[in-house]
Amino acid sequence: MKSLNNILVDGSYSMDKEDLLCYGYDASGLDMSPSAVVWPASASDICKLMQFAYQNDIKVIPRGAGTGLTGGAVPSNDSIIMSFERMNRIIEVDTRNLNVVLEPGVINGDLQQTLAEHGYFYPPDPASLNTCTIGGNVAENAGGPRALKYGVTRDYVMQLEAVLPDGRLIHTGVQTKKSVVGYDLTRLLVGSEGTLAVITKVRLKILPMPESVITLLVAFNSLEQAGKSVSRIISDGIIPRTMELMDRITLAAVNKYKTVGFPEDIDALLLIEIDGSANAIAADADKAANICNGFQGKIRIADDTASRELLWDARRSVSPALYKISPTKINEDVVVPVTKVPELLAGLQALSEASGVPIACFGHAGDGNIHVNIMTDKNDKKRYDEAEKLVRKTFKLTLDLGGSISGEHGIGLTKSKYIDMELDTVNLDIMRGIKKLFDTKNILNPGKIFPPKVHT
Amino acid sequence: MKSLNNILVDGSYSMDKEDLLCYGYDASGLDMSPSAVVWPASASDICKLMQFAYQNDIKVIPRGAGTGLTGGAVPSNDSIIMSFERMNRIIEVDTRNLNVVLEPGVINGDLQQTLAEHGYFYPPDPASLNTCTIGGNVAENAGGPRALKYGVTRDYVMQLEAVLPDGRLIHTGVQTKKSVVGYDLTRLLVGSEGTLAVITKVRLKILPMPESVITLLVAFNSLEQAGKSVSRIISDGIIPRTMELMDRITLAAVNKYKTVGFPEDIDALLLIEIDGSANAIAADADKAANICNGFQGKIRIADDTASRELLWDARRSVSPALYKISPTKINEDVVVPVTKVPELLAGLQALSEASGVPIACFGHAGDGNIHVNIMTDKNDKKRYDEAEKLVRKTFKLTLDLGGSISGEHGIGLTKSKYIDMELDTVNLDIMRGIKKLFDTKNILNPGKIFPPKVHT
Repeated sequence: MKSLNNILVDGSYSMDKEDLLCYGYDASGLDMSPSAVVWPASASDICKLMQFAYQNDIKVIPRGAGTGLTGGAVPSNDSIIMSFERMNRIIEVDTRNLNVVLEPGVINGDLQQTLAEHGYFYPPDPASLNTCTIGGNVAENAGGPRALKYGVTRDYVMQLEAVLPDGRLIHTGVQTKKSVVGYDLTRLLVGSEGTLAVITKVRLKILPMPESVITLLVAFNSLEQAGKSVSRIISDGIIPRTMELMDRITLAAVNKYKTVGFPEDIDALLLIEIDGSANAIAADADKAANICNGFQGKIRIADDTASRELLWDARRSVSPALYKISPTKINEDVVVPVTKVPELLAGLQALSEASGVPIACFGHAGDGNIHVNIMTDKNDKKRYDEAEKLVRKTFKLTLDLGGSISGEHGIGLTKSKYIDMELDTVNLDIMRGIKKLFDTKNILNPGKIFPPKVHT
Repeated sequence: MKSLNNILVDGSYSMDKEDLLCYGYDASGLDMSPSAVVWPASASDICKLMQFAYQNDIKVIPRGAGTGLTGGAVPSNDSIIMSFERMNRIIEVDTRNLNVVLEPGVINGDLQQTLAEHGYFYPPDPASLNTCTIGGNVAENAGGPRALKYGVTRDYVMQLEAVLPDGRLIHTGVQTKKSVVGYDLTRLLVGSEGTLAVITKVRLKILPMPESVITLLVAFNSLEQAGKSVSRIISDGIIPRTMELMDRITLAAVNKYKTVGFPEDIDALLLIEIDGSANAIAADADKAANICNGFQGKIRIADDTASRELLWDARRSVSPALYKISPTKINEDVVVPVTKVPELLAGLQALSEASGVPIACFGHAGDGNIHVNIMTDKNDKKRYDEAEKLVRKTFKLTLDLGGSISGEHGIGLTKSKYIDMELDTVNLDIMRGIKKLFDTKNILNPGKIFPPKVHT
């Protein structure tokens, strides 16, 4: 590692204990000390670094802002953490062709703010948007509440510049929406969790801001009725931009954490936002409200930006709020077809009752993506083991309903032991083959995604 | 080949001369006789066939309806053509979760009709939709006029079932919009032109029919003004579902071929369709019309389904109509950022004038995708060579404008010698590596996409 000074200038790398500590963890709660942290300033720096790593068999772990929940950015032993604070420029905002060019360290929220000033927006909006980076978003194929109407990161990445594990620079994709010229390497890199290449530049599609938005807050006395409303709204052909669900435990936690004024003593809350032209959304909001009424939902409308922002601020605080009421939460991120949401919620409630372990559910119900939080305490082995057993049961329930074990968070380290519940040997064989093709020496973010390498 | 009778029942394969002739070509104009044609009835048939082919080193070429324009379905020497007429079932229409499950031989237009009866639609609508199959659409990542607003096939494929070249069955993707579980093999297969796996089942996203549609027909006395209108409409944040351009040569050809009543003696025609809620589209249509007026466009509105269908019927007849006025046309399919459309059109006009070779331009101007038809005669060597030279020049012009050499048609055989104009060695290395990973023996649709294997 000492020879890093041959590659990078002073101040662009560190082996100080404090830095190793600060960059050794992510939001999964896992941690491990790297041997060095580097802050490249350009693709050319990264090419040099990867050549060095390749020649010397050194592991490199790219890291966005460390907001990932499955340990995708947690270092391995004797590895270099590569962080992108110095590559955070918005290079180009092309409103005429509806796209932007960014360095990977740009924070999602900063992009949103810049675009808002021009009257545009970038749909993917993970709850961590004020911290998380675009590079991390691309690596994890990030979603967010608006994915219901607008899709996920994959749907917005047009071009990537990236450095392969052997140090070669690659440019993928095109500046146009269409192109059929060879295999789709862009979408192969999106969601590959930093295991195939280091992303150094991104061109993203953007959209004009919708003319208007209506926000409905609907209180239910039964989680099942809320789930049924969600399912019916989608089936009736209404596609809100978001339809967020919070259950009783989640609401209590948020109300304790923030003075947002979410209704108390209810079983479920839906936060529905419909955007588009003023007339169209009024009609859709009426239909959605009628459906919710039919399931005994009580409706409140947030009709100004300030009250809407307050609601979203509260929604984004769900994850920290839940941490406040339970020493440990095992955070899963399952997704099922939207008609199966009521069954998923009922199944989870049954699992919680049978085991006595509280489970808090919230998330993007409109696209079937529920964040399942199993509340436990990692210092109480018996309680923790009991909770851990629920993970496998949650995944089994999800897969039986035609779902997937991760809607947004990826596999990283924490879910790799479960990946074979969803993917069979043929899939894993091909995927491992792709990993090997890109990363012959297994130096780029090794041990992530693929089982079963125990992280010690 | 004789031993095919050990694998397939009578009537599901043929070595008759007539069949070999009928399945030996596609719309590229290239042809070659295969050694056999097979019509599998199931994924299990295909697994057996591919195992047989793999063990005996026999080349297999999957073929949809042969509407491809780049030779992707043209057989090699001593190969088996695999055709999907017997796998044309619509297995499931799930309007509640907004998706359908299909066998690969379903014709795009049949799917559209079935969905229309339920009030839904599948956006990708290639001009050949009354003939082309969903399997072929997936293999080529097909687009169509509506791609402007709704995206291409890639954006609609949720799950694939496919058979690998060694006969193993693979299931990729999920039933949900979101999932981050391993690499995105689904989108790796979409657009891979039948070179990685044989698609045996497809789950596609569908959408509710829009409430209303307005169709504007705008006549221009200058191609450049038409191009500028297109560019301005998009830049102003209006996203019609289609914005189709036809130039003077194209219009003359269509008017001669069909009595559609397209205006005569103009330089360019735009066919603009805006869909959505009635109020929203009226406002957008006004804005689009004002922009076109500003560029001296003369507007006519087609306000009923019958007159709209007539226009679309004419639009879809462009390709056959052009064949009528020229013995041979070299059909390219370039795409540039939408702001570059005027420059592309001007550049093509200049190329045509300098060479004396007529070039007819039409296509999906709204997403920058122009079908460039170089009019020539393959029996007149001098004229043909002159025309062929224009292909490289057209691609150079396109790439200089930040575009791509194929928006929809793929590379197949006819464009493989040009692929390295767009993709560098690093890209091609990785793509060839992927091909080898999937198809170690190079038996599945060999010689397609990758240069430079001369097709003899």
